[in-house]
Amino acid sequence: MKKNGLFITLEGPDGAGKTSVLEILARRLENSGTDFLKTREPGGIRISEKIREIILDNDHTEMEARTEALLYAAARRQHLIEKIIPALEAGKVVLCDRFIDSSIAYQGAARGIGTEEVRSINRFAIGDTMPDLTILLDVPAEEGIRRISEGRGHEVNRLDAEGLGFHRKVRSEYLRIAEREPERVVLVDATKNLEDTAEVAWAAIKSRMK
Amino acid sequence: MKKNGLFITLEGPDGAGKTSVLEILARRLENSGTDFLKTREPGGIRISEKIREIILDNDHTEMEARTEALLYAAARRQHLIEKIIPALEAGKVVLCDRFIDSSIAYQGAARGIGTEEVRSINRFAIGDTMPDLTILLDVPAEEGIRRISEGRGHEVNRLDAEGLGFHRKVRSEYLRIAEREPERVVLVDATKNLEDTAEVAWAAIKSRMK
Repeated sequence: MKKNGLFITLEGPDGAGKTSVLEILARRLENSGTDFLKTREPGGIRISEKIREIILDNDHTEMEARTEALLYAAARRQHLIEKIIPALEAGKVVLCDRFIDSSIAYQGAARGIGTEEVRSINRFAIGDTMPDLTILLDVPAEEGIRRISEGRGHEVNRLDAEGLGFHRKVRSEYLRIAEREPERVVLVDATKNLEDTAEVAWAAIKSRMK
Repeated sequence: MKKNGLFITLEGPDGAGKTSVLEILARRLENSGTDFLKTREPGGIRISEKIREIILDNDHTEMEARTEALLYAAARRQHLIEKIIPALEAGKVVLCDRFIDSSIAYQGAARGIGTEEVRSINRFAIGDTMPDLTILLDVPAEEGIRRISEGRGHEVNRLDAEGLGFHRKVRSEYLRIAEREPERVVLVDATKNLEDTAEVAWAAIKSRMK
C-alpha cells in the first residue's frame, strides 16, 4: 500500500486541551487549503461503532480489562482500514484524536495490563500504519485534574484526588513513549495558553508537510 | 490463581467428527462420576455472545480479517474469565470445543494473517491458562470435505473442491502445532470409526486425570 498522505495523531491526558487544539489545527489546515480528514475512533464506522457500544455499555460491569483492550484494538483496526488508510492513499493529511499511545498509556500502564502486551496487540491491529507524527500535549497530572474539575464546574473532590495516581501513571507512560520515539512524538507543553500550545503543534505539522 | 481442574480442548477441521466425539467423552466423564463442564465459545457469556453477533452478522461484509481475529480473541478472553477459569478453580474437568489452536490454524494459516501474529494476540487473551491437554482429531482434507458434503446431503461440488487448498492449510498447521507441542497435543487418527476414535481420546484424558 502506497501512502502519500501524512498521518498525525493527537495524544494527551484528559484536561490537556486536546479537543480545543484539534479545532485550531483543523482551522489552520483548512485556511492553508490542505486536503485533510479529522477523525477519532469509532468515527462513524459501523463495525467500530458496534464494538464501542459493547465497551461503553454501563451495564457490562463484568467486562475484563484484557477483553476491553482487545475490543479497542478491533475497533481501531476497522476504523483504520475503512477511514484512515483510504484517506492517506488519497494523499490527505489525517488528524486523529487519540490512537495507539492512548491504549498503551491508559490500559497498558495506568490499568496495569502491561505496556508491552498492549503495544503488541495494537501493533497487530495497525500493521505498518504507525502515525508519521504524534503531538503529545503534556500537563502535570494535578493540572489535568484541576482543569477537568473546572470543566465539570466543581472543585477537586475526593474522587478526583483518588484518581491522581492513575493520571500520574498515564502521564509518565506518555513521557516514556516520547523519549523512546523522539522522531515520531513531539512533546508540547500544554500548560501555556491555548493559542501558544496550538502554535507549537502547528509548527510541528508544517515542518512535516514540506 | 490456583487451578485444580484439568483444561481439555478438542480441535480439528470440520468433518473430523468433533461434535460426536465430544458427546461420547462427556458421557464417559459423566459415567465415571467426574465433575466436568462442557463448553464452547461464546458459551452463553453475554459479552462474548454480543461480540460473536458482530462477527457472524452476514451483513458485515466489510469486516477485515485482523478485526475479526481480535474480536474472536476478545470473546475468548471473556468466556475464559467468566466460565473456564471458575470451573478450573472449582476443580472441574473442562471440555472446550475449539480454542486457541483453531484461531492459529484457520485465521493465522488458512486465512493468511500469520500464525505467530495470531498466536500472539491469543496468548494475550488467554494469559497463563493454556490447555493442559488438546485432543486433535486428524483427517485428510479430502476426507473432511467428503464428510461435510455428505452431512449436507450432496456430492462434493465445485465450491467444496475450491476449498481444498484452505482445508489443507488448516490441517497442515494443526499438524505443525502437534509437532511443536507434543506434551500438550495428542494427535488422534479420526479416519477410523467414531467409537474407536473416541476410545483413543478417552485414553488420553484418563491418563491425565490420575
